[in-house]
Amino acid sequence: MIGGGQGAFIGAVHRIAARIDGDYELVCGAFSSDPEKSKASGVALGLSADRSYSSYQELIEKEKQLPADQRVQVISIVTPNHVHFGPTKMALENGFHVVLDKPMTFSLAEAKELEKVVTASGKLFCLTHTYTGYPMVKEAKQLVKSGKIGKVRKIYVEYPQGWLSTFLEGEDNKQASWRTDPGKSGIAGAMGDIGTHAFNLMEYVTGLQVTQICADINIVVEGRKLDDDGAVLIKMNNGASAVLTATQIAAGEENNVKIRVYGETGSLEWQQWDANTLVVKMSGEPWQIYRTGGGYVSSFATHNTRTPGGHPEGYLEAFANLYHNFALCVKAQLEGTQASPEAQDYPGIDEGVRGMAFIENVIASGKSDIKWTKFNV
Amino acid sequence: MIGGGQGAFIGAVHRIAARIDGDYELVCGAFSSDPEKSKASGVALGLSADRSYSSYQELIEKEKQLPADQRVQVISIVTPNHVHFGPTKMALENGFHVVLDKPMTFSLAEAKELEKVVTASGKLFCLTHTYTGYPMVKEAKQLVKSGKIGKVRKIYVEYPQGWLSTFLEGEDNKQASWRTDPGKSGIAGAMGDIGTHAFNLMEYVTGLQVTQICADINIVVEGRKLDDDGAVLIKMNNGASAVLTATQIAAGEENNVKIRVYGETGSLEWQQWDANTLVVKMSGEPWQIYRTGGGYVSSFATHNTRTPGGHPEGYLEAFANLYHNFALCVKAQLEGTQASPEAQDYPGIDEGVRGMAFIENVIASGKSDIKWTKFNV
Amino acid sequence: MIGGGQGAFIGAVHRIAARIDGDYELVCGAFSSDPEKSKASGVALGLSADRSYSSYQELIEKEKQLPADQRVQVISIVTPNHVHFGPTKMALENGFHVVLDKPMTFSLAEAKELEKVVTASGKLFCLTHTYTGYPMVKEAKQLVKSGKIGKVRKIYVEYPQGWLSTFLEGEDNKQASWRTDPGKSGIAGAMGDIGTHAFNLMEYVTGLQVTQICADINIVVEGRKLDDDGAVLIKMNNGASAVLTATQIAAGEENNVKIRVYGETGSLEWQQWDANTLVVKMSGEPWQIYRTGGGYVSSFATHNTRTPGGHPEGYLEAFANLYHNFALCVKAQLEGTQASPEAQDYPGIDEGVRGMAFIENVIASGKSDIKWTKFNV
Amino acid sequence: MIGGGQGAFIGAVHRIAARIDGDYELVCGAFSSDPEKSKASGVALGLSADRSYSSYQELIEKEKQLPADQRVQVISIVTPNHVHFGPTKMALENGFHVVLDKPMTFSLAEAKELEKVVTASGKLFCLTHTYTGYPMVKEAKQLVKSGKIGKVRKIYVEYPQGWLSTFLEGEDNKQASWRTDPGKSGIAGAMGDIGTHAFNLMEYVTGLQVTQICADINIVVEGRKLDDDGAVLIKMNNGASAVLTATQIAAGEENNVKIRVYGETGSLEWQQWDANTLVVKMSGEPWQIYRTGGGYVSSFATHNTRTPGGHPEGYLEAFANLYHNFALCVKAQLEGTQASPEAQDYPGIDEGVRGMAFIENVIASGKSDIKWTKFNV
Repeated sequence: MIGGGQGAFIGAVHRIAARIDGDYELVCGAFSSDPEKSKASGVALGLSADRSYSSYQELIEKEKQLPADQRVQVISIVTPNHVHFGPTKMALENGFHVVLDKPMTFSLAEAKELEKVVTASGKLFCLTHTYTGYPMVKEAKQLVKSGKIGKVRKIYVEYPQGWLSTFLEGEDNKQASWRTDPGKSGIAGAMGDIGTHAFNLMEYVTGLQVTQICADINIVVEGRKLDDDGAVLIKMNNGASAVLTATQIAAGEENNVKIRVYGETGSLEWQQWDANTLVVKMSGEPWQIYRTGGGYVSSFATHNTRTPGGHPEGYLEAFANLYHNFALCVKAQLEGTQASPEAQDYPGIDEGVRGMAFIENVIASGKSDIKWTKFNV
Repeated sequence: MIGGGQGAFIGAVHRIAARIDGDYELVCGAFSSDPEKSKASGVALGLSADRSYSSYQELIEKEKQLPADQRVQVISIVTPNHVHFGPTKMALENGFHVVLDKPMTFSLAEAKELEKVVTASGKLFCLTHTYTGYPMVKEAKQLVKSGKIGKVRKIYVEYPQGWLSTFLEGEDNKQASWRTDPGKSGIAGAMGDIGTHAFNLMEYVTGLQVTQICADINIVVEGRKLDDDGAVLIKMNNGASAVLTATQIAAGEENNVKIRVYGETGSLEWQQWDANTLVVKMSGEPWQIYRTGGGYVSSFATHNTRTPGGHPEGYLEAFANLYHNFALCVKAQLEGTQASPEAQDYPGIDEGVRGMAFIENVIASGKSDIKWTKFNV
Repeated sequence: MIGGGQGAFIGAVHRIAARIDGDYELVCGAFSSDPEKSKASGVALGLSADRSYSSYQELIEKEKQLPADQRVQVISIVTPNHVHFGPTKMALENGFHVVLDKPMTFSLAEAKELEKVVTASGKLFCLTHTYTGYPMVKEAKQLVKSGKIGKVRKIYVEYPQGWLSTFLEGEDNKQASWRTDPGKSGIAGAMGDIGTHAFNLMEYVTGLQVTQICADINIVVEGRKLDDDGAVLIKMNNGASAVLTATQIAAGEENNVKIRVYGETGSLEWQQWDANTLVVKMSGEPWQIYRTGGGYVSSFATHNTRTPGGHPEGYLEAFANLYHNFALCVKAQLEGTQASPEAQDYPGIDEGVRGMAFIENVIASGKSDIKWTKFNV
Repeated sequence: MIGGGQGAFIGAVHRIAARIDGDYELVCGAFSSDPEKSKASGVALGLSADRSYSSYQELIEKEKQLPADQRVQVISIVTPNHVHFGPTKMALENGFHVVLDKPMTFSLAEAKELEKVVTASGKLFCLTHTYTGYPMVKEAKQLVKSGKIGKVRKIYVEYPQGWLSTFLEGEDNKQASWRTDPGKSGIAGAMGDIGTHAFNLMEYVTGLQVTQICADINIVVEGRKLDDDGAVLIKMNNGASAVLTATQIAAGEENNVKIRVYGETGSLEWQQWDANTLVVKMSGEPWQIYRTGGGYVSSFATHNTRTPGGHPEGYLEAFANLYHNFALCVKAQLEGTQASPEAQDYPGIDEGVRGMAFIENVIASGKSDIKWTKFNV
């Protein structure tokens, strides 16, 4: 693991997610840009001192020199955005598979560069767009794909958070500080941190792509340097329209990402707070409640579920599904076989490039006086 | 009553709403543009033949000639939009109070003309924006006004319906036919029919006014002549931003108008399907559930409630609140007194003018290549 | 109307319910046992002084002497329980139809006596078990009847209220005072006031009858004279078992009566706070949400609905359904025709007798050391 | 681990729960009563062949002979009920800490015997009553303890499942077979499997103890040998009354265990399907929604939470909380220190003895003609 030392939120989440299904063992790490802290974090996490490295460069170089059956196989990179590209590129080029936190890079240019690296490396790459790991999100995608609701016409996706309602970055809050710092986060704040999740969720569930956008991007909290709120009107490549909202100043809200997809004959609704429920509303029929663990769901949902219906699985399990599917694909590659379609269904480099394109396009649109702008990748 | 004969939806709703609190008695009507049908409808509704008129003109003329203690006092006008202005103007100018269904007129020009008529007449005028009649919507307004959530920063208002997901106007459906006919509905379809409700709800609850908009207006169903879907980015007069969506092609949806208002310190959430609940989310505190009938709610909520907490009141009661408050104001005027602030809190000519401005501005913005356009009244 | 003067809750509810569909006109009343108050209440409600009677006896006698086309046709009796039998019997025997509030009488003996009076009179009789007036409760009954969930095996019905959590009868609260007074309420408190509703709802929806009970009946609040809490284990006449709970000391609760019925192949769930929803859970299938106004519901649900899906109807509309159906039956009798099965589906004397049997059996069981006691009628 | 081979549900759950927080490593196991299967399961789970034992006896004997720093420290026992006592006793007496699945033993006599063994061994013992591991269940307990809702007066606890609605044990279903087999499950079916959970949840949250019961215990599905449904009237040691229901024939239901606790001034409500929410209803105030991760919750809730508010944690995390807290206590014992009160808050031998008492008392009451029977331990 690279990144994820003390005070980090997402590093701990990655570690839990990797552990849940027993596919991974944490064997080495470079947990901080501060060499001392990095080594200390490793030891605190139970690693041996010699594999608690002082930097990601050292980690990659030293691990590479270990015998194949001892060296780390998959490197998780959970650093702030500005330290995504470097270690990912180096890891891939040195023969390691990579799991990377989102958004993928600091800029779209880096993303495209990374795309080439991934392709050239032949290594596997996973980008942790967690929400697509939920069984009922997978079910939603499969239902759309099956034609259940007909051609998609309208999409609403929203991601409201309230934790940045005040000037938290002025209060020595590590999470707030890097996320609102253009030098670490990139050109976007909320749009990068959670807007990309909403964007990914929308494209994942519908199988459609954004082609035009019109964005209202705001900095609401005084003194903040990056956007903390935004709303985007969208056109999709099948002619459907969409509305995406993402905000971090929705005081009182937690983290309830939600999507609604309307087709010609019915619609789907999913939201994280009731993550094991997918509401299916067909015109002229009683609404249907699909549930995680139901015997009637697709193999994609079932494959990503551990317990019988009614034993709620949550965010950590969704995250673990990414790790588990990635592990199955890594194993298949090792064995020279093909992982199942269900296992291959995790976000990767394509989603990463489109996510970075979302960030650049949406920030540009926010500054533009032109209404509709083409979504450039 | 003018309009509301057989096959009409909203006419029957008005009659129930007027009856609930026992303030009104239906004494005369012109229920259809077809003189025969008009008279027949009146008799079917239990009116005497001589007060079942063949046209609204006849109604107003004949009733005016009756002795003051026998003639109708309040005229409800529930015709399609293109027959709003004429009878309303004539009724007011002939000394009758008027309750009018929304949207107020066929055009903004008519609306402004009507504004002058109302002022000149000295008569009372109510526009039935039903949703502002709900006790918990009134509570939301009072909480915002009290400063409970601080300065408003963000508003989401949505109105999804699914009933026009197909080309219903091709199937001899009276409701669909006039609502999608530019000659009867005006320049807007969904934006006029339900967008105006969402707009009114937003301005009512927040006490703010829209100043700029950027609209995506769509005709989704092939062959339809008016918009059936739209989304609007909005700027308010205090600097807050908003997103308004209204659609009639959300297959599977019923009629769940919903509003969320985010202030500096907390937020409010209300939706019609759970109309007796107002969710209050203050930063860093447990969420609060305000309920119709709760002993802690404002006088505005209590005044508009008939039963103790837990006895759900719904759409018809919200509608009845408009009628009841209007009756209290009519009585007060008759008695030369002042109705209570709670009774005076019903939508009127100002809301009607702004609603028509919304229609014209939003349709214009939908056609414009310019991103932000000023909201002109 | 008899009873329902100032300070009364249910009298006003009856008046609204009677008005909603325009079937009734309030023409006379005896609103209080105090002759002065009775007459004053009538005038305050807009009645003429000569039909604002000083007692129910006077009302019945005087009205009987009016010409048939002027006299009252239906008498609503909304007095406390100890004044149910007398006026109901007198009204029926003098040729008036009666709508009576529940529980039907002061004792089971009175109930059986009244049964004979109703039969002998040839007049129509309605007992206002409101909850059976909800469209989705009617739908539940029809679904059970249709065999949708197979043979019923288990029933849970609950009625939690919190308003009597304190010794409210010591605080000059009219509602609390008579309901906790054995001289006015009868032998039961909560079991009579709300337990009978739960009992009726259970027998109505399932079409089954209680045959054995085992009750835990409590007086929780110190100083109270009648039960304010109870739970009952039940056996039904098809072998199913049930659990009925009713309490008025559930601090914080409003009035959320709820029923769940489990059959061999699926189950039904309805609760008042979300009254327009009926949850249908079939084994091995997605859950289904039936909604008031849905095009797929039975004629019994549709007949009792006024607005399209998504316009919530509530408690007053459910109550109004009883009045409206009763009116349809009264009209049919007048016209010598037969009302529709949907119109005839309102609670009457049979439900009243069984409700009084419930009260007597459950209080007896509460005092008994024997576990299962036969449900005697 | 002892038990939990192929086809077992709860074994896999234990393994995930043990892994989530990285406190445990699976080092050995005896996974089946069939020696071949047992060893094969171990290898399939990635264990070395020499620590994949053929029986629990072998496991305990062999592990005991390993050097202290190599041998297993904690043994998880996840066998059917009839194989709980033997391995637990042997493990404790041979110096291993034990995590045991519920219900604790085959009989109350065994439970009391085990109580002595635990005490004598000085080893730590955890019984996996999962539901008490939820943060919001812990919060509920702390709120009751703090006096928030006053003296507890009424408790409703329910545990509805539908999976045994048919004669599943006739269809070669391993889970159904042993749970309905008196030789493996003991004298109770549903009451042992899920009734004990409901019982434990009730005593845990309220801090009260059951003193008298009156049970209705049923075998609903024809041919079944053990109860699959039951309802129990209960008296608590502070005078409160309660109703406990548990059923496995609630067709259509999943696993929604729910508890409501009513005190003098307010109430608490929690249910598993919305596990991160605790509803607090104080008389005369807006309802409050406490949420996992909220800054205002007790240290007991926070200690058992991994992610910020709005990232739903579920059943596996609740289960993991038991394992994690147990690990903290094991570590503390190793280090000669005292674990925190939060860490010590996991179910153990006392809860196990009371749970077995519940089974024996409730089955006896179900067969008795006497109404109230004393709860004997």
